[in-house]
Amino acid sequence: MARQERAIRTRAQILTAAASVFGERGYEAATVSEILARAGVTKGALYFHFPSKRALAEGVLAEQLNDIDTPAREYRTQEVIDTGLALAYRVRRDPVISARAWLSLGQEMQRLFGGGVIPAWLAETRRLLEQAKEEGELLPHITPAETAWVVSACWTGVQVYSATLSNGDDLEEKVSLLFAHLLPFIAVPDVLGKLDYRAERAGEVVAEMDRRYAELAAREAAGDTGAVQRLRGRGDAGEPGGSLAAGA
Amino acid sequence: MARQERAIRTRAQILTAAASVFGERGYEAATVSEILARAGVTKGALYFHFPSKRALAEGVLAEQLNDIDTPAREYRTQEVIDTGLALAYRVRRDPVISARAWLSLGQEMQRLFGGGVIPAWLAETRRLLEQAKEEGELLPHITPAETAWVVSACWTGVQVYSATLSNGDDLEEKVSLLFAHLLPFIAVPDVLGKLDYRAERAGEVVAEMDRRYAELAAREAAGDTGAVQRLRGRGDAGEPGGSLAAGA
Repeated sequence: MARQERAIRTRAQILTAAASVFGERGYEAATVSEILARAGVTKGALYFHFPSKRALAEGVLAEQLNDIDTPAREYRTQEVIDTGLALAYRVRRDPVISARAWLSLGQEMQRLFGGGVIPAWLAETRRLLEQAKEEGELLPHITPAETAWVVSACWTGVQVYSATLSNGDDLEEKVSLLFAHLLPFIAVPDVLGKLDYRAERAGEVVAEMDRRYAELAAREAAGDTGAVQRLRGRGDAGEPGGSLAAGA
Repeated sequence: MARQERAIRTRAQILTAAASVFGERGYEAATVSEILARAGVTKGALYFHFPSKRALAEGVLAEQLNDIDTPAREYRTQEVIDTGLALAYRVRRDPVISARAWLSLGQEMQRLFGGGVIPAWLAETRRLLEQAKEEGELLPHITPAETAWVVSACWTGVQVYSATLSNGDDLEEKVSLLFAHLLPFIAVPDVLGKLDYRAERAGEVVAEMDRRYAELAAREAAGDTGAVQRLRGRGDAGEPGGSLAAGA
């Protein structure tokens, strides 16, 4: 057990180092030896977990997308907003999430890695907007697939601009501004008036998610293996709200 | 004169090669020797024009921004649209423009090159929206600086998504979709109804710009050095329309 924990820690250390090197240099220019030096682990340990540079990049890209697993809300549109805000909060604080975002931007990423995290995030946004449409939240001219594409693409552009022009310091604020521009075209007035896309909500949503994960971990440690199912995913339709009400 | 023409051609050849290598590899991983091999010029010629890899990247980034020099229209908002559409058309056909866009995305670009083309394009969009505001085209809640930021950032995200998910093949269509989402929040209804943001307009605007440049070149060849001033820039307020009417 102690050995397994050590292996998990080593793997996390390597991924964090890989993320920071990929983030700084890009995939092509990054080298395994720089990742090795930064990780502070033995060469054997690194190659045990990740046999190649490609495997390291895949490891960074494949880390479970906890960052898009936002709590269920009264409105699906609010879940789209919370996803965008929470990711903005995390991308500039977590080096692995940040590197994953940057790695997904490379011109060769589609060929090398199937587009990084872009397809997964697009699919999640689309799923939420399709539900929103069914539930009457969207204006009649909206096609969920098209609008999901625009919302995800714009988020990515906002991240690039914030990083390039402001070192990422205004990312939550700019994602909030993005939603202010897009939502009036998307949501019916009734719903629009209840949506909360303030920049400050970003940190609030992440704190809520962190509490939920802590709760999950505690329940699992206590042997309640069903906790994952009940706390995560959207199966919990009977338990709609997190603690943050939309429009609060 | 023949020698000068040859030098101009050589320089263009080198920039095109550099653009394609930077575009494929990113700045960090690109090498001068690969650019040299692709340009098909002598090492001496390359170093005469561009003494370093950095100088090559600066050359690619600094090529005059003809791609954002769209013709004057009745509405400034239409000029913002035409800029976005024309750039979409060009970015997937011209390797230098494409490489410039990709180079601007790198996480290190702000530090290395002041953000690539991002600040220039942002400033141009802002200038147009400030004029649009003065001329009563924008809804009262719009702050031109903020909206220019959102419009430019979203365009960039759309370019990344189109390149990643569709090899860029749907870029004009997706830029058109982006404007459909953003403009109702931006323009007063009267102006909105007259704006043309069809995807097909992209090629029409570029054809018009190409005709204008051919005319410019012909006039200059005939010794009319004032042609530049009259044909380009926004000084020609008395001559508002290109041949493409807004809302045509």
